[in-house]
Amino acid sequence: MGLTRIALQIFEIVPNISEGGRAEVVDACVRSVENAGARVIHRTSDVVHNRSVITAVGSAAAVCDAGVALAGAALENIDLRAHRGVHPRIGALDVLPFVPLSEATMQQAVDLARECARRIWETHHIPSFFYAEAAATALRRSLAHVRSGQFEGLDTRFERPEWRPDVGDPRAHSSAGAIAIGARQILIAFNIELATGDLSVAKRLARAIRESNGGFRTLKALGLPLGEDVVQVSLNITDYCATPLARVVETVRVLARDAGTEIRRCELIGCIPLAAVKRAASFYLGAQIATIEKDIAT
Amino acid sequence: MGLTRIALQIFEIVPNISEGGRAEVVDACVRSVENAGARVIHRTSDVVHNRSVITAVGSAAAVCDAGVALAGAALENIDLRAHRGVHPRIGALDVLPFVPLSEATMQQAVDLARECARRIWETHHIPSFFYAEAAATALRRSLAHVRSGQFEGLDTRFERPEWRPDVGDPRAHSSAGAIAIGARQILIAFNIELATGDLSVAKRLARAIRESNGGFRTLKALGLPLGEDVVQVSLNITDYCATPLARVVETVRVLARDAGTEIRRCELIGCIPLAAVKRAASFYLGAQIATIEKDIAT
Repeated sequence: MGLTRIALQIFEIVPNISEGGRAEVVDACVRSVENAGARVIHRTSDVVHNRSVITAVGSAAAVCDAGVALAGAALENIDLRAHRGVHPRIGALDVLPFVPLSEATMQQAVDLARECARRIWETHHIPSFFYAEAAATALRRSLAHVRSGQFEGLDTRFERPEWRPDVGDPRAHSSAGAIAIGARQILIAFNIELATGDLSVAKRLARAIRESNGGFRTLKALGLPLGEDVVQVSLNITDYCATPLARVVETVRVLARDAGTEIRRCELIGCIPLAAVKRAASFYLGAQIATIEKDIAT
Repeated sequence: MGLTRIALQIFEIVPNISEGGRAEVVDACVRSVENAGARVIHRTSDVVHNRSVITAVGSAAAVCDAGVALAGAALENIDLRAHRGVHPRIGALDVLPFVPLSEATMQQAVDLARECARRIWETHHIPSFFYAEAAATALRRSLAHVRSGQFEGLDTRFERPEWRPDVGDPRAHSSAGAIAIGARQILIAFNIELATGDLSVAKRLARAIRESNGGFRTLKALGLPLGEDVVQVSLNITDYCATPLARVVETVRVLARDAGTEIRRCELIGCIPLAAVKRAASFYLGAQIATIEKDIAT
């Protein structure tokens, strides 16, 4: 065939920064990631969330360097004391997950997350919490938990022994706050906009579908305001095999109709595994989908 | 990044053989392709069509060898004089398209198709028509045209100067007929089953959507019987950008409803470009879809 298979030890990072409006700030942050040697494959910004999500891939060294560089770029450009947005956040660089792809292991991602946090502390003096697979205690596995109280509540929280940072002094950086750094499996972040301004509808729908209230497995969902006549169900799926994306979207469609509204548009944040796309296409087209690419590219 | 980009000159072949029932015959045909060094990435058989479609990829040498070997395996196992099926066919190995993938060119695919036909004639004494991009005359570009009259009408047709074979003597092989060998762009072959036994409905819907009757661009469609209470709209799309698959399926859904029936199931034959899958998923989910794989695998 003339095809050579290369061993790939690649990681994804999906940093979230607390800036969704000023394009020059987001550009500077994206550049810092690229200059460190990681490849940015997706970026998305939202003004109401006041938040951007960058998706980048690279070797262990590249994504770790990128995390440190990005923490610096965010620190330089974002002051959380003046930050407003509907999405919870504790830092200028707010969340930094390391995701093992292809032949990388979760343990390697955990090690990378911890090394990156140490280097950020040394370089920029911003403390970090380890979350998800990198968490040192059960309490810190949940990102929502780690971010509770947000930037404004950090110093109060640091006073409690169970909420000392994992890296750094127990004092939030005055402008950049703290960072949730972790390792996790690949995740689907998907937003569904509803054509209503009634936030209670989004919150009710989020409760109806999320795992913590007895809904779909591995699904986290949040109802958020987005505009005068639009609210959002913001969701994360960590196991798209247990809970296919199309099933969630179609359930929300029915629930929205029942609530007298409808889906206005949807939005994928970052990237999605190819297998999840095929599954969605198969569901809607009513046919098994096979692609040329899967078998010649891997 | 540690990623090396390899130049890939890869071709796809999508041979159709006139056997859809006897698994041991299809297995033997698939094995002949694999033993020649091509990688079989998909196979599908249909009893009513009495036809199987094999999708394989490989280097120029591998797919050309595979075509010759497969013509031999089909010849050994399939006798068209006893063959019945709803799908038009002229040969045991009925159609053999060469598709340029990645960095291969159409001219290379044309050259391969013609070389393969010559080698099949030398080895197995089966004549070939060149069709699509490999056609020597405008008349032979259309596969439907090349196959008109089917196996049973071959010898009568060969008597007419404009229908002499491109390779081989103007006499069909007694049991294996002739082969349509060509080169073409990648194509989506998709079947939509309707929950009715009324063939006229499938034919009417096919006419409504196909390009030749003023329907969707680059879409070919055929209404075929499939069972007592099921008919099929069988379609080919050669430019999925001009005519996205989801648009066709949803149009058929509406037309079927209007005709008092509905889509029972759909079926993809062979493989589909990843971009077409993403497009379908985006259409149905109402969101732009980006995958991790596109950017780390290429």
